[in-house]
Amino acid sequence: MPRHTTNLERLLHPKSIAVAGGSVAAEVIRQCRLIGFAGEIWPINPRREQLEGLPCFPDVASLPGVPDAAFLAVPREETLALVAALAGRGAGGAVCYASGFAEVGGDGIDLQRELLAAAGDLALVGPNCYGLLNYLDGCALWPDHQGGQRVERGVAIITQSGNLALNLSLQKHHLPIAYIMALGNKAVTDFHHAIEALLEDPRVTAIGLHIEGLGDIAAFSRASHKALQRGVPIIALKAGSSSIGAKLTASHTSSLAGADELYNALFRRFGVARVEDLAGFLETLKLLHVCGPLGGRRVGALSCSGGDASLLADLGQACGLDYPELPAAVHRELGEVLGPLVPLHNPLDYQTYIWGNVPALTDCFAAMMRADTDLSLLTMDFPDSEKESIEGWDESVTGFIEAHRQQGKPAVFLSTMAELMNGPAAKRLLAAGIAPMQGIREAILAIGAAADIGRRSTELIGLDPLASPVPLRDGPIAQLDEFNAKRQLAACGLPIPAGQLVTSLDQALAAASAIGYPVVLKAVSAELAHKTELGAVKLNLKDAAQLAKAFGELPGFERFLVEKMADGVVAELLVGVTRDPQFGLALTLGAGGILVELLADARTLLLPTSRTEIEQALRGLRCFTLLDGYRGKPKADIGALVDAVEAIARYAESQADRLLELDVNPLLALERGALAVDALVRLVED
Amino acid sequence: MPRHTTNLERLLHPKSIAVAGGSVAAEVIRQCRLIGFAGEIWPINPRREQLEGLPCFPDVASLPGVPDAAFLAVPREETLALVAALAGRGAGGAVCYASGFAEVGGDGIDLQRELLAAAGDLALVGPNCYGLLNYLDGCALWPDHQGGQRVERGVAIITQSGNLALNLSLQKHHLPIAYIMALGNKAVTDFHHAIEALLEDPRVTAIGLHIEGLGDIAAFSRASHKALQRGVPIIALKAGSSSIGAKLTASHTSSLAGADELYNALFRRFGVARVEDLAGFLETLKLLHVCGPLGGRRVGALSCSGGDASLLADLGQACGLDYPELPAAVHRELGEVLGPLVPLHNPLDYQTYIWGNVPALTDCFAAMMRADTDLSLLTMDFPDSEKESIEGWDESVTGFIEAHRQQGKPAVFLSTMAELMNGPAAKRLLAAGIAPMQGIREAILAIGAAADIGRRSTELIGLDPLASPVPLRDGPIAQLDEFNAKRQLAACGLPIPAGQLVTSLDQALAAASAIGYPVVLKAVSAELAHKTELGAVKLNLKDAAQLAKAFGELPGFERFLVEKMADGVVAELLVGVTRDPQFGLALTLGAGGILVELLADARTLLLPTSRTEIEQALRGLRCFTLLDGYRGKPKADIGALVDAVEAIARYAESQADRLLELDVNPLLALERGALAVDALVRLVED
Repeated sequence: MPRHTTNLERLLHPKSIAVAGGSVAAEVIRQCRLIGFAGEIWPINPRREQLEGLPCFPDVASLPGVPDAAFLAVPREETLALVAALAGRGAGGAVCYASGFAEVGGDGIDLQRELLAAAGDLALVGPNCYGLLNYLDGCALWPDHQGGQRVERGVAIITQSGNLALNLSLQKHHLPIAYIMALGNKAVTDFHHAIEALLEDPRVTAIGLHIEGLGDIAAFSRASHKALQRGVPIIALKAGSSSIGAKLTASHTSSLAGADELYNALFRRFGVARVEDLAGFLETLKLLHVCGPLGGRRVGALSCSGGDASLLADLGQACGLDYPELPAAVHRELGEVLGPLVPLHNPLDYQTYIWGNVPALTDCFAAMMRADTDLSLLTMDFPDSEKESIEGWDESVTGFIEAHRQQGKPAVFLSTMAELMNGPAAKRLLAAGIAPMQGIREAILAIGAAADIGRRSTELIGLDPLASPVPLRDGPIAQLDEFNAKRQLAACGLPIPAGQLVTSLDQALAAASAIGYPVVLKAVSAELAHKTELGAVKLNLKDAAQLAKAFGELPGFERFLVEKMADGVVAELLVGVTRDPQFGLALTLGAGGILVELLADARTLLLPTSRTEIEQALRGLRCFTLLDGYRGKPKADIGALVDAVEAIARYAESQADRLLELDVNPLLALERGALAVDALVRLVED
Repeated sequence: MPRHTTNLERLLHPKSIAVAGGSVAAEVIRQCRLIGFAGEIWPINPRREQLEGLPCFPDVASLPGVPDAAFLAVPREETLALVAALAGRGAGGAVCYASGFAEVGGDGIDLQRELLAAAGDLALVGPNCYGLLNYLDGCALWPDHQGGQRVERGVAIITQSGNLALNLSLQKHHLPIAYIMALGNKAVTDFHHAIEALLEDPRVTAIGLHIEGLGDIAAFSRASHKALQRGVPIIALKAGSSSIGAKLTASHTSSLAGADELYNALFRRFGVARVEDLAGFLETLKLLHVCGPLGGRRVGALSCSGGDASLLADLGQACGLDYPELPAAVHRELGEVLGPLVPLHNPLDYQTYIWGNVPALTDCFAAMMRADTDLSLLTMDFPDSEKESIEGWDESVTGFIEAHRQQGKPAVFLSTMAELMNGPAAKRLLAAGIAPMQGIREAILAIGAAADIGRRSTELIGLDPLASPVPLRDGPIAQLDEFNAKRQLAACGLPIPAGQLVTSLDQALAAASAIGYPVVLKAVSAELAHKTELGAVKLNLKDAAQLAKAFGELPGFERFLVEKMADGVVAELLVGVTRDPQFGLALTLGAGGILVELLADARTLLLPTSRTEIEQALRGLRCFTLLDGYRGKPKADIGALVDAVEAIARYAESQADRLLELDVNPLLALERGALAVDALVRLVED
């Protein structure tokens, strides 16, 4: 294990903490005491006698021991000196609170470079950050108030924003939080370091990331790959956008494969579920903490309110949950408990005939849990416990806990409005292994995310971590003409139409005779990106006369391609490859023709990819409807399409140090086979 | 004003309340006292001496006066008798708590009919309902706990579900609620009655509906039309689904124009904003309560956290908010307050240099409010006020209030996590006319909804209320063949291709000569719904030989249509009209060809509609990209398309008592004109 990782673990669970600075350092000491830190605290301040009642040391050298952790709340220049001294003494890690580094640009960038050099093996967190909270062992390397509770197991939250970390610590979602890490500028410790360190702690049940940008995609892929293998689910709230967009060209594929789509490709590949907002972040973590990844999206839902049941049905169906019909045995059992007046559906409105009757409630809930579903869910909103007793409600909690104990199926007890969960009830539910969730929409999205992670962790598709991107070699950039682009791709196994390059009508007629009519005539030039729009493509020429006429309509060109006209076309796709400095090569697969803009129907895969991932991407396109035999029309040859996409990927990888951009548009999906009828390649010249 | 409406207003603001029943009635009395009801309460119970300390009366006849309101918590048969007695004495209204009416079917339906008859002019609410809460004047015709506060102005919430009403009363969103009405089975008092009564109270700022189903669409349209004219915004959370789906045929249009789309058409037409969930319902009502409908979606956003600002940007853009760039003057002013280190964008991360400095904060916020936007928004999450002082945060509140006072622009103070709003701060903000909102996503959706309502209330398009649907006459159902369907539609002004009906090849050749090649040959039969798929359509026949060959390929048919082949086709649309027993005739306009299924790209308009509404629907389609000149291709003749859709609507309305279904598919959008090349009509025979 690298030294930095070991030191990061020391930083997360220190026996001794050095705290440098004045009032902010004093706040760190107060937070350490509030959270119940049991080790030694050594203030460093050459101008003070004591801080918060503890004697100050003038510098690192005079500390009574080597600290596992340090919190440095001093100006940026002093931070540098302290980091060097701590590294020199073999300290574990240090949180650098000071700002004025890379985030301000200019000399801040230099200073951050110096900081990095000074850190050595030190697990440095920040600079420009709030630091770490460890609610398991009780440690607050933290300069501000915070709202967490000590826990025995829980989720870890990693973010770059101190403000967001603080707000998340104040959550009222009954989410057991084990760690909060605010990484700031990530000069040394990045998301992947944090994830790898957290994976060493078996008390961490799930990890939530708030990412502004990832620095090292390959390292992140290794960390998330390890998490998936260890069964520790990761979710991500990805904020902001990278600078990738500017680097992309104006071709179709590029406009679809923006930075966000690259992050989506990365997250999808490694089973990192993406969430939309803070409430969803917390609720999804809570579900994963309690239930872990789910086997699927089949939910058996219960409510004693018809209004709630219909909300659950509407929102659930809109978000892709499946409420399977109740099997006959469950139907019979529910009928026995609920009587003839209650219609039996899923979601089930079990009404209030058995309100407060624990044995009947238990039987009802247990019967529903025996349906063939992946999760059982009960909605109930509690009264204001400061004003009302929760008698009656509590019986439902008891019944649900007992039914869950009997059946052992993942279970959620949901308040439809986030604020109407009851604190003591939530504690009982958590202790019983049931997720007390808050807010219908958030719970439904959380179930979907947990099911996605569950699916991904069993699929193990293309699951090798990514390698670091191959750098682009220097040199002038060339655009291959269609003829050469297709020839190069064909050499990697991509099927292209039979065709010949010609320069005169006579050659064209001879080529057509050899190939057989109908043919296509195209002007060839490396400068021609959009031939079709320029009228430089003549389709479906059925005989010599039509070919001659078409030839006459393309004056001013010197080279032409005569190709066999394709038939049996089921649909048009496009496949593009772009290069991103962080993510390396990415392949985008989408609907072609007008659908590309109207549907925005594309999926991006990071290279290298696998046949299974390619086929899944194809099946995930909206235009798959066309490929699968639209209204009785023939189906496309999916195997051949996957072969073709694999060939394109193979070509791109073979040119990894040269390729800037590649477009196969259209790739024709045929009844038998697939055919790339146009291609464009831009690369660094050989 | 009808008697029922006057009585409903009496019921909402009673001076005297009769309460019939035992323990539930006692709870009503307790709730009346809790809410501060100042009038008289008369318990009715022949078997008790007193209830909650008040003397009981044996029956309605012996009451000391005519009650404005009654709460009947007695079994269903007794409810009937009491309703009759109350109606007889000229009482205002009655809440019928008992269940066992139409919702159980069978004899319950008969009983509900009897109840309706017994009610006379009585404003009866229910049965099977929880009743009414009036937090303005202090009245709780309510059988359970509830969580509201007395207010001077506020929103009204109308729902059918007592449980949902109760939960909404327990909200912790700082939403001032004026009324809650739980209508149950709506035997007498329906949504439109409630809306019309609430519109008479100027203290009602906005109305929120939770609808399971509407009984009288025309009446609802009149009420929502009146609300729009009066400037009282309405939002709806529409739950469940109607039985309409089953009545629709399997044709394309029908499958797109399901019940939900009919509700959408209704809501869109009358400016009723639809929300998705309970948190969104409460937050949207709160924004409308404070700011009313908005002028647009342009937001100037502020945060002192970069993390929050990027969340705001991402979610806002995804949900259609517009963050315009800052004008030079605002840029300069912000630069002066914030100094050179703060990058100036919208959303603006104004950082913490001016934290706690009220004059600087005020200047910063006021400068941002001077940008050309429809709303200003500041995000800030408060610490836990039980543990921390909100000093520092409070200064930001003060600055925002002062800036708002200076600039007078609609303003939102947003906690990114719903639970991190501070109670006293929320009160100060509300009093200052600023919406204290909770949850980024909900706030953003609320802003979009308020902007939609604002736009709709200025557009006044097709704003006449709907008439009641014309009933379908009895009789056998006929399907017109293509020839007759098109002729009938053409008589209403729909352009169709030049063509002739023929029965032999000779006639076909003569017709083609007269029309001019190229032509289309189609087999005609009333049974042929999907000619294209059966191969019964031969396109682009260029001469007599091709026509003859095509004719030979259609054996077994007796009648044929020879038509001019269209050219200049920009795109294919489809227009359908369906009939729904509740909504009457509805016209669906959508992308044709393969796009109809791939894009699910359609908009439904209730008939009668207007040119403006038709054009807006066209422009709202995703395929409008094609109509508007896709990649340098010609534009479609939008005026001619609108004419064509109007003609179809005119035909449908002229056959309102006969028409079951109509499909024009495709309607060709041409460079000049529009052309209906196929049509299907099903109607009751003449």
